[in-house]
Amino acid sequence: MKTRVLSILLSGLAYTCTAQDSVMFRKIADEVMLHGTCYDNLRVLCKTVGHRISGSPAAAKAVTWGEKAMKEAGADKVWLQPADVPYWYRGKESLYLKLDGKYEKVAALSLGNSRGTGGKTVEAPIIMVHNLEEFKALPESEVKGKIVYFNYLFRQDFIFTFEGYGDAVKYRGLAGSLGASKGAAAVIIRSMSTGTDDFPHTGGTRPYRDTLKTVPSMALGNKTADRLEKACLKGGVTAKMTSECDMKPNMVRSYNVIGEIRGSETPEKIVTIGGHLDSWDVGEGAQDDGAGCVQSIEVIRTYKALGIRPKCTIRAVLFMNEENGQKGGQAYADSAISKHEQHVIAVETDAGGFSPRGIGLVMPQAQKDKILAYRNLFLPYGVYDFTKEEGGSDIDPIGLKLHTPLAGLIPDSQRYFDIHHTDNDVFENVNHRELKLGAAVMAQFLYLVSEHGL
Amino acid sequence: MKTRVLSILLSGLAYTCTAQDSVMFRKIADEVMLHGTCYDNLRVLCKTVGHRISGSPAAAKAVTWGEKAMKEAGADKVWLQPADVPYWYRGKESLYLKLDGKYEKVAALSLGNSRGTGGKTVEAPIIMVHNLEEFKALPESEVKGKIVYFNYLFRQDFIFTFEGYGDAVKYRGLAGSLGASKGAAAVIIRSMSTGTDDFPHTGGTRPYRDTLKTVPSMALGNKTADRLEKACLKGGVTAKMTSECDMKPNMVRSYNVIGEIRGSETPEKIVTIGGHLDSWDVGEGAQDDGAGCVQSIEVIRTYKALGIRPKCTIRAVLFMNEENGQKGGQAYADSAISKHEQHVIAVETDAGGFSPRGIGLVMPQAQKDKILAYRNLFLPYGVYDFTKEEGGSDIDPIGLKLHTPLAGLIPDSQRYFDIHHTDNDVFENVNHRELKLGAAVMAQFLYLVSEHGL
Repeated sequence: MKTRVLSILLSGLAYTCTAQDSVMFRKIADEVMLHGTCYDNLRVLCKTVGHRISGSPAAAKAVTWGEKAMKEAGADKVWLQPADVPYWYRGKESLYLKLDGKYEKVAALSLGNSRGTGGKTVEAPIIMVHNLEEFKALPESEVKGKIVYFNYLFRQDFIFTFEGYGDAVKYRGLAGSLGASKGAAAVIIRSMSTGTDDFPHTGGTRPYRDTLKTVPSMALGNKTADRLEKACLKGGVTAKMTSECDMKPNMVRSYNVIGEIRGSETPEKIVTIGGHLDSWDVGEGAQDDGAGCVQSIEVIRTYKALGIRPKCTIRAVLFMNEENGQKGGQAYADSAISKHEQHVIAVETDAGGFSPRGIGLVMPQAQKDKILAYRNLFLPYGVYDFTKEEGGSDIDPIGLKLHTPLAGLIPDSQRYFDIHHTDNDVFENVNHRELKLGAAVMAQFLYLVSEHGL
Repeated sequence: MKTRVLSILLSGLAYTCTAQDSVMFRKIADEVMLHGTCYDNLRVLCKTVGHRISGSPAAAKAVTWGEKAMKEAGADKVWLQPADVPYWYRGKESLYLKLDGKYEKVAALSLGNSRGTGGKTVEAPIIMVHNLEEFKALPESEVKGKIVYFNYLFRQDFIFTFEGYGDAVKYRGLAGSLGASKGAAAVIIRSMSTGTDDFPHTGGTRPYRDTLKTVPSMALGNKTADRLEKACLKGGVTAKMTSECDMKPNMVRSYNVIGEIRGSETPEKIVTIGGHLDSWDVGEGAQDDGAGCVQSIEVIRTYKALGIRPKCTIRAVLFMNEENGQKGGQAYADSAISKHEQHVIAVETDAGGFSPRGIGLVMPQAQKDKILAYRNLFLPYGVYDFTKEEGGSDIDPIGLKLHTPLAGLIPDSQRYFDIHHTDNDVFENVNHRELKLGAAVMAQFLYLVSEHGL
């Protein structure tokens, strides 16, 4: 009952505050678009740290960068939250395909978390399947000792490309263990890629230190995948795969970087905005997820620059180890539990620094309705879609363990899976205005929630 | 009264057809996203023709390309519609600035349609103004013989960048004649650019063969503009400008390229979709407006591939000379008048091949309302904004002369003015999915109008 009265009261507030909120939305957007430092911050992260897989020296350097950037943004308090993370390393690797009668080296990447060939060369004929059904129908005798090519096409007919990713990603996750189940020597997959180019996409395969048997696993870019498909239809294709990748035996101490502005009225209530600081060990982790990190820091900077004193405590979190363990997200949730923290909402931006189009909401309908009452405020900033139930991997643990409502920035998704997890995920492929606009929308959204509650 | 009854009848149709329309929208999107050729077409235009200013041999080559592409798309009829166009040429040009005591060559572009220094070198001190008011306040004696630097910043706080362009573009249009009005030797402007780089942006200045006195005019990229600003604040800056650009004495015969699918029920009613084939003489005219051309052709191809027999005649038009004369658009309107054609609507896509976000509508409210009744059909394709009154320069003449309702594709605008009219407007800066999605939305929109009228 108390909740209901509060909710009605807040609805009333919502109504009367709209004009004022609209002015604040404009101020926030002006501040970010005219004076935002997130793009410059991203340049520094990408060009002085570069890619930064969990556990690596680069990841440690990224933590130092994040701490400094958070302080420069003016956070009242900045600290590092420990998280022990796995450290997967790639080492040397190569893939040669005999497509036209002679071997040629092709662009390929071992899948993240996979175990390679131990530096030895595996040479075997390739057998191609297009999907799980075809693979399941194959007798073990046809697979044994061969390299299985999972040639599943990323569906380009989904308009929201995350649906295409959701549809295709099982081939990355399962290929190695499927191959092992029928005695394959190794597997090759067509990357989870919308690209028209030849960049192979890495990304997590088997969970860290699971007990499933698996085999060496590599991904191809779309152009090589097309050539291999053609060659397999003719027959007689063989491959030579060599790789050293593996998980290091010990976990590595790493950290989430946290900065906060203490709430002016209800500091015990926490509103979190975050991205993840680790990346795969290719490219510069610019869109995935340097963008989300610098946008989260920008929220802090913007509030400080505008003198906004949020009612709730606002926390920006650069999570560690989203890509292959989610240990940072778990540490954040565990800490919240042990400290009996009150979390109003946790928001993540981990879908790229593209033009914002919506905000995903993972919460009961009553809370969604509260947010939807403000939806028109976002229209001038191009944000219209509140229908998707998308939060983010790093905030899933706090959602699960504390039942905290979750939200996620939904940027335009057209370009994300062209560059996701590739050598092409570099600073130059982030647009300054798109990145800033996403940051502005996050700052606006957090302002609403902090002022009006949920 | 008849109109009213028809309108009610059509509203009824609108209501009952929604499910069917939704299915057709999906079919159109699938066809374009999975089998669309617009991206490949754009590659051919950009890489085999390149930039193609009106009147140039490259523009003639583009006409030949367009005719072939339109035929390959399966248009029932393809023809060339004559338009005599001006031919502005750049020739050699250079700008040297003495910023730190010695001259250095900087990236600069003469403004389109401007007359250069006749190949001679103009050397003069620079006087900087930030806006028109500052310029107007200057006594003639302070301007005479000098090079005026119009250092007006493109406003990055407008979320829809075309508003920023609309705000700033007068400096490109007026700088030369303003300079002349107070006896300046030449003018330099900061480009109409949102870019964080140093690409200068050309673009039209004085109208073709106007009678206004003007002086040589060049644009700088933002980085050089920033450096010049700093140097001017210190004082003592001079420049050496040399340019050969001018308008050729004679008009050149050129063409609009037109392809059509004859209407199955009311062939006399024409629905036009177009982009412009000419570009400025830099880059490859990829986003401006190769994108609009290949999207227009894609509409024809998609209808043919799906066996759609539109009730009205659908015309795809590649207009010539949008950039510096609009002679193609005028020829199209004049031909429509002389042939007593019935035009239901004319639609242009000339704001880049970015993710579609809306459709601009320039028509009476009653007609807007008819379209708005279908707005939810577009939401799954990311199109939500029907509030902007934007058509396109090439269709303005038919709108003015025949009172034809106009519409324009509104893509995401964040990146457009980073590359518009620069050497950076190349094929590589167009994303395949964004381009196709825009084409799909245009095909969907034309389908609606052709089926349900306006």
